[in-house]
Amino acid sequence: MHKFTYQLPLRWADTDAYGHVNNALFLRYLEEARTRMVADMLPADEAERRRRAFVVQQSLIDYKAPLDYREEPVSVDVWVTRSRGARLELGCAIRDADATYAEATIKMAAYDLETGAPRRMTDEELSFFTRYTEA
Amino acid sequence: MHKFTYQLPLRWADTDAYGHVNNALFLRYLEEARTRMVADMLPADEAERRRRAFVVQQSLIDYKAPLDYREEPVSVDVWVTRSRGARLELGCAIRDADATYAEATIKMAAYDLETGAPRRMTDEELSFFTRYTEA
Amino acid sequence: MHKFTYQLPLRWADTDAYGHVNNALFLRYLEEARTRMVADMLPADEAERRRRAFVVQQSLIDYKAPLDYREEPVSVDVWVTRSRGARLELGCAIRDADATYAEATIKMAAYDLETGAPRRMTDEELSFFTRYTEA
Amino acid sequence: MHKFTYQLPLRWADTDAYGHVNNALFLRYLEEARTRMVADMLPADEAERRRRAFVVQQSLIDYKAPLDYREEPVSVDVWVTRSRGARLELGCAIRDADATYAEATIKMAAYDLETGAPRRMTDEELSFFTRYTEA
Repeated sequence: MHKFTYQLPLRWADTDAYGHVNNALFLRYLEEARTRMVADMLPADEAERRRRAFVVQQSLIDYKAPLDYREEPVSVDVWVTRSRGARLELGCAIRDADATYAEATIKMAAYDLETGAPRRMTDEELSFFTRYTEA
Repeated sequence: MHKFTYQLPLRWADTDAYGHVNNALFLRYLEEARTRMVADMLPADEAERRRRAFVVQQSLIDYKAPLDYREEPVSVDVWVTRSRGARLELGCAIRDADATYAEATIKMAAYDLETGAPRRMTDEELSFFTRYTEA
Repeated sequence: MHKFTYQLPLRWADTDAYGHVNNALFLRYLEEARTRMVADMLPADEAERRRRAFVVQQSLIDYKAPLDYREEPVSVDVWVTRSRGARLELGCAIRDADATYAEATIKMAAYDLETGAPRRMTDEELSFFTRYTEA
Repeated sequence: MHKFTYQLPLRWADTDAYGHVNNALFLRYLEEARTRMVADMLPADEAERRRRAFVVQQSLIDYKAPLDYREEPVSVDVWVTRSRGARLELGCAIRDADATYAEATIKMAAYDLETGAPRRMTDEELSFFTRYTEA
């Protein structure tokens, strides 16, 4: 397996009055990396995209070190720790070559936003996630 | 014990392209309630405030139901599940009379931002948190 | 005429590394006040709401004084300086009893998001805006 | 002269319930490009940076076209239309090869955050801005 990695550039406004990237932004960074990971797999049609959505059920973040604004991007790694039925579980890290700033686990459910109910992942989706699945 | 509750008004911009309050915003809502809970206890002097800061070490959020924009505020409850030495652990809920949208546990460390090291909470702080501590 | 005023509570995260409310947030504050001003007038049906939308064409903000985080809300005033055809022009102020933090002019167009084209305001809309129109 | 251009990647969360990048975010994009334009010129020392700060006095944005989320960055152009004494005036555009999404003028004042007063720009600063000044 390989991890999906997005090189995410910080924005100065991500920092708070303490001068560090605000901890809520870490969830944004993870969301952005996920969005880019699945971009190729998403249906082009918007209505279809709503039928094949994913929703976050649980987020767990361990903050390891303060992250200060700098021009260089941080690496946001995403990989799959479990995918079965409606359940998708992701491991994540926000890091660079020198340090790990946060580690996270995101539990998601495959979801049909039109009916408002969980759905089983398609074979295509399961096959896609296999690429990023831990052995 | 009693819970601290902040009546937090939503902002339309908190919603994302799915029309729901974005899950990263829930961390913001919890941060805002915490900020208001401890406002009376904080040193007035800014340098002193940096010496008696708290940093988030772990956040765990269970998303229970989608939250849509509306004019009425949501209730953000915060209470203390543990406070000892440098460790402060908070229970949180985002809810209204009809539903619970999220439940969360936030683990924090009392921290001196000047020295960059954890610190023991003062008696005044421990006494303050007793008010909100589960029996 | 009377101004529409929304008492907007700040969020600690609105502040940036300089400790002041970030200037981009002022546009958010104005948006939130506008959203609440027109809330009663908006169609309940979402598709209908998209047909009777408004889009921002120009925003002009004069920053008068830095705004620091505090628990008390700021007053966001909105009033109508012009409404005719598809054009809606708003005057705005962000202030409290002691100071004015920003003044703004927002030029909007009545817009049909389904067709992607400007539209003429309805009589009901024009009549609604008369309430907030400068003599 | 040449314009400073920052290739700014969008974030999915920049979009609002209408599915477009929220208009307040355009101010964030401009701020980020400015921050990167002057990064090399800024004093390394934080106290010194506060003495040689700039504050926004007026922002004027013309919204030209809706910007939807996509993986490719947008170009944010910044150039200097005036720099003299304490006054710095910037022209800006948010665009790609196909379209211009917004044009803006940002009026800033060189400012000493320690004394809370405007300051004259240094020769070094004026010389720096000459690079990006319209003939």
